[in-house]
Amino acid sequence: MALGEFDLIAKYFTRSVTRAALGVGDDCALFATSPGTQLAVSSDMLVEGRHFLPTVAPQRLGHKALAVNLSDLAACGAKPIAFTLALALPRVDETFLAGFAQGLLALADQHECELIGGDTTQGPLNLCITVFGEVPTGQALLRSGARAGDDLYASGTLGDARAALEVFRGTLSLAGPAFESVRLAMETPQPRVALGLALRGVATSAIDVSDGLLGDLAHILRRSNVGATVEVDALPRSTVLAVLPIAQQREFTLAGGDDYELVFSAPPERAAEVRDAARRANVQVTRIGCIESVAGLRLVDQAGRTVSNSYGSFDHFKT
Amino acid sequence: MALGEFDLIAKYFTRSVTRAALGVGDDCALFATSPGTQLAVSSDMLVEGRHFLPTVAPQRLGHKALAVNLSDLAACGAKPIAFTLALALPRVDETFLAGFAQGLLALADQHECELIGGDTTQGPLNLCITVFGEVPTGQALLRSGARAGDDLYASGTLGDARAALEVFRGTLSLAGPAFESVRLAMETPQPRVALGLALRGVATSAIDVSDGLLGDLAHILRRSNVGATVEVDALPRSTVLAVLPIAQQREFTLAGGDDYELVFSAPPERAAEVRDAARRANVQVTRIGCIESVAGLRLVDQAGRTVSNSYGSFDHFKT
Repeated sequence: MALGEFDLIAKYFTRSVTRAALGVGDDCALFATSPGTQLAVSSDMLVEGRHFLPTVAPQRLGHKALAVNLSDLAACGAKPIAFTLALALPRVDETFLAGFAQGLLALADQHECELIGGDTTQGPLNLCITVFGEVPTGQALLRSGARAGDDLYASGTLGDARAALEVFRGTLSLAGPAFESVRLAMETPQPRVALGLALRGVATSAIDVSDGLLGDLAHILRRSNVGATVEVDALPRSTVLAVLPIAQQREFTLAGGDDYELVFSAPPERAAEVRDAARRANVQVTRIGCIESVAGLRLVDQAGRTVSNSYGSFDHFKT
Repeated sequence: MALGEFDLIAKYFTRSVTRAALGVGDDCALFATSPGTQLAVSSDMLVEGRHFLPTVAPQRLGHKALAVNLSDLAACGAKPIAFTLALALPRVDETFLAGFAQGLLALADQHECELIGGDTTQGPLNLCITVFGEVPTGQALLRSGARAGDDLYASGTLGDARAALEVFRGTLSLAGPAFESVRLAMETPQPRVALGLALRGVATSAIDVSDGLLGDLAHILRRSNVGATVEVDALPRSTVLAVLPIAQQREFTLAGGDDYELVFSAPPERAAEVRDAARRANVQVTRIGCIESVAGLRLVDQAGRTVSNSYGSFDHFKT
């Protein structure tokens, strides 16, 4: 028996809302923000074959669809409140929906982020989530605040998702457990929400790494009107990545994409506070370089020698 | 020359924001709501072949994509503030983008609704807009407030969009100017934002007609735990529709879909205020029946005789 659109919404996505005055099931969802706060809003659209592979388990896809949006809130230092989900499906597939909803709502619960509305339609598989967070007025982490002299940091490790993608593409071979580890990084990224909150008032700028470190860092540099030097051998990498050829390590960490780690700047005199924020958020944070007044992005190795920058950032429309 | 994703965003969709503290170009958009208000949020996803035909002009598609979202705000009596746009495109097509942005932003300007963020990616054509409005706390029009004895009203005219669709499907033939008129209704619906605002404190319930009058009215009846009688000959229709065979008139007005008119209830003693709201919003409003305590939806003709209800509402997953 085919379920109709309204049954679908009810069966998998209706939950009682606690924070919102009105959730799924009216023309609009209604909620109020706290006094003295700004609303932070971000929208991400995920398309099969581009943001996820057809082989991904529905539960992991549900996780990832929300995770990439929460990662944008993290990069602004905003506390998640709620989200809407618009979903185009080729056909009603209850196994898919049950798994997708489970992964999605588990991550939502973890971050106390309520599903308050959305839309379902038939069409090529497409997931569009808009997420709402709140941040005390004027305290959001922006891309535009980096200053010459600031240290540059990255959270977690970089490049694992790209390694997993290369295995799927057939250009890289990894042993079973190593592959499972990087596949988990690609399919279930952990948005650094707690770190973003802990960095408010400490970091001068932040962005989340979705298109690759170099491309995303370039946004900070352009918006802040500064340059940077990145120490390529200092880039944090997993034990799986650390045994690959050095050229691959560099490519995956610098231009990998899909990392959903935070890259941020902070003045050297706040280094202890950065370490404290990392400890409170229970996330590894590594100094990867520094912000400079000279425009442009320079790469150096551990001996300080220039490394040529031939890495492109990922762009959905460039081939 | 192919434009990259970031160039695309900049070229067509970046505008200086006035209300928002921060618009397109950071991880999140930031804005504050007014004290004493609730935020109203709605998300709609439009897919080619299901919500619009490949023949639609890009400018009209841009209009419609935002209009269907503004219509949800109208149904809640919320004042538009801002929206995000997520867009999947098969390829970079500057003619399409220029037209789309023009139609989209013209309607946005008309309603003082700012584009504050979004996402672009490559994929099968898909448009997902999330719109934000504000409404004084507790004053939103809901689906759940209809009471037995209330009059039932519809704005504008119903069924034109369906007539246009039937011409495209080849099941209906209309002369050129008549076709242009109903095609305009289908491709550039006018969201009844001013009417929704004027009905705050007057209407007891409201919904916008997207899936067809009967299907959408059923949501009000279920949520309000009431029934209704609809006078099928009283349903407002255009001069184009009024000359079609009566069976078609009834089907198109009752189950047409894509009308984006408001259907709402109000107590008989507020009839003058309803008329006043319609006049202030410069929209025709017609009484089409009444709310009753007996569950179910009854159709009667102008002589009060029962009309059989064999009309289904539009459901994206039912065939």
